[in-house]
Amino acid sequence: MPELRKDPVVGRWVIISTDRARRPSDFAVEPRDPSGGPCVFCEGNEAMTPPEILAGRGRGGAANGPGWSFRVVANKFPALRIEGDLDPAGEGLFDRMNGVGAHEVVIETPRHDASLATLSADVVGDVLLAFRERVLDLRKDPRFQYILVFKNHGEAAGASLEHPHSQLIATPIIPIMVREELDGSARYWEMKERCVWCDIVRQERRAGARLVVESHGFVVLAPFAPRFPFETWILPARHRSAFEESGVDELRDLAAVLGDFLRRLGSVLRDPPFNFMLHTAPLREPRLDSFHWHLEVIPKVTQVAGFEWGSGFFINPVPPEDAAGALREGVPDAG
Amino acid sequence: MPELRKDPVVGRWVIISTDRARRPSDFAVEPRDPSGGPCVFCEGNEAMTPPEILAGRGRGGAANGPGWSFRVVANKFPALRIEGDLDPAGEGLFDRMNGVGAHEVVIETPRHDASLATLSADVVGDVLLAFRERVLDLRKDPRFQYILVFKNHGEAAGASLEHPHSQLIATPIIPIMVREELDGSARYWEMKERCVWCDIVRQERRAGARLVVESHGFVVLAPFAPRFPFETWILPARHRSAFEESGVDELRDLAAVLGDFLRRLGSVLRDPPFNFMLHTAPLREPRLDSFHWHLEVIPKVTQVAGFEWGSGFFINPVPPEDAAGALREGVPDAG
Repeated sequence: MPELRKDPVVGRWVIISTDRARRPSDFAVEPRDPSGGPCVFCEGNEAMTPPEILAGRGRGGAANGPGWSFRVVANKFPALRIEGDLDPAGEGLFDRMNGVGAHEVVIETPRHDASLATLSADVVGDVLLAFRERVLDLRKDPRFQYILVFKNHGEAAGASLEHPHSQLIATPIIPIMVREELDGSARYWEMKERCVWCDIVRQERRAGARLVVESHGFVVLAPFAPRFPFETWILPARHRSAFEESGVDELRDLAAVLGDFLRRLGSVLRDPPFNFMLHTAPLREPRLDSFHWHLEVIPKVTQVAGFEWGSGFFINPVPPEDAAGALREGVPDAG
Repeated sequence: MPELRKDPVVGRWVIISTDRARRPSDFAVEPRDPSGGPCVFCEGNEAMTPPEILAGRGRGGAANGPGWSFRVVANKFPALRIEGDLDPAGEGLFDRMNGVGAHEVVIETPRHDASLATLSADVVGDVLLAFRERVLDLRKDPRFQYILVFKNHGEAAGASLEHPHSQLIATPIIPIMVREELDGSARYWEMKERCVWCDIVRQERRAGARLVVESHGFVVLAPFAPRFPFETWILPARHRSAFEESGVDELRDLAAVLGDFLRRLGSVLRDPPFNFMLHTAPLREPRLDSFHWHLEVIPKVTQVAGFEWGSGFFINPVPPEDAAGALREGVPDAG
């Protein structure tokens, strides 16, 4: 059983997940397939994954067989386990609880060589709708406080499999980075009675220098203080706190703008490794005036070293104005 | 001029350091020597570095020539610049200031193929004394609030040069990760009127399971909630808040225990890439009852991916009890 443990000084929780490694010296987080064997996410290999939780089967076809457009399955090497109670306990100074949670994989397409940049907006939209459906389902489980939707693309970004996929992890604790955003934006609300991200969107639209692209309902921008070169945020233009309360039209709009942005990124940096992470309101407080959901995209083109790990200061050699300029000019091919 | 910029939501500062990259697409943080040319840190090549600020010249020899045991020089590609005023300014919602600071390199030995694990305790002690001397000198500069001493060892840990070296960066702001430790430990002090790290040392010594090795004055332990496999902390056994107020004997003792630990780590994980970062009290409050300086060592054997970047939760496949056990058994060769 994985275990959640809390640092007694800074309050950061970690997951001690021994199921993912057999011996102390076997410390790969996501073991890569060493054999170069068949892709477990490809069509025809459905038996190689845990049973599907959700799938796009507009073309027909029985569950766990071919004929799908996307599939959601449990992660075969879950960071947290779905069974059991939290059983929080102390050990002197220290706090721990059972590593209860959900860890699912969204296989975005049967096409092994595709990506969110090359798939059509319809297909990307189906993936976003699958995220929404899984969050709406998992939030019924009272043990969970938060669900992080994220993607690792490329080996340097931590992807263990090439086949296009994203993941979600439901946790019994609000992650510390989300907590910091909740606290910071609540302080801003207290001072100004405005959402800080609404203010950012307003200011960036007026200034223009860090704006990448806009759609009817979404703004894509390089943040003022980015940790990473070409770090980009995608935000709803109007105030929205919970991703899972987005309408179908909103998510179809997001799919188009996400694909557009990823094609720009791919053309400027030549298909870089990247992560994206969805920051949304906690499951138990979906309607917040102070919090505004957003998707953070971080290309992995620089190394994080001792200074960053020790200080939390990030050294970024690319001003966001330059990154946004390059991304604005990088005309995307049609999706 | 590099620029410091603050995220308006979470208060995290970043360094936008364009001097380190010429074009938006040239985004390597520490450009590697592509030529495989002569090592700029080797003896005889002193003219290839900025002039020395401090050096071990017990054997004689003129400044900036051969004959040294260690050298401290300005970083040729500094993240922050020593000249100028901070000039803090707002831009609507946003805050920025000039990237003023110091960025120095400690070349630990003339021996290109040595390391802190293989060098004698005397030599390691001289390096630690050089850290102390540089901190004592730089803290006279009223612009600086903090000095982070750190090391990148191995390419995967962000080292751009093989030759044994460590670095320090003086910043005009207390780094957010140190601020979080200061705040967390101050809260603990408020509740208990005890230093949280003193309590950790006491509990870990009694329990033993996470203890790696001890000397007269230092304790080496695997923290209860480590972010990384084999993450290890070295702390003074007695309460000490500021590293730079350590005595010579204390630093000689630390040198022996650091070398011992690094040899154990090297034998268990076969010379892994690692970072270390020194967390000490801020320059303007060196005497704190609640803060206890410590050296954090983080081997880089797993990848940090979207879940970690988006949540601040780290997934660690190696329980610290197993790591400490392996390190206790990994009998180090003599230094």
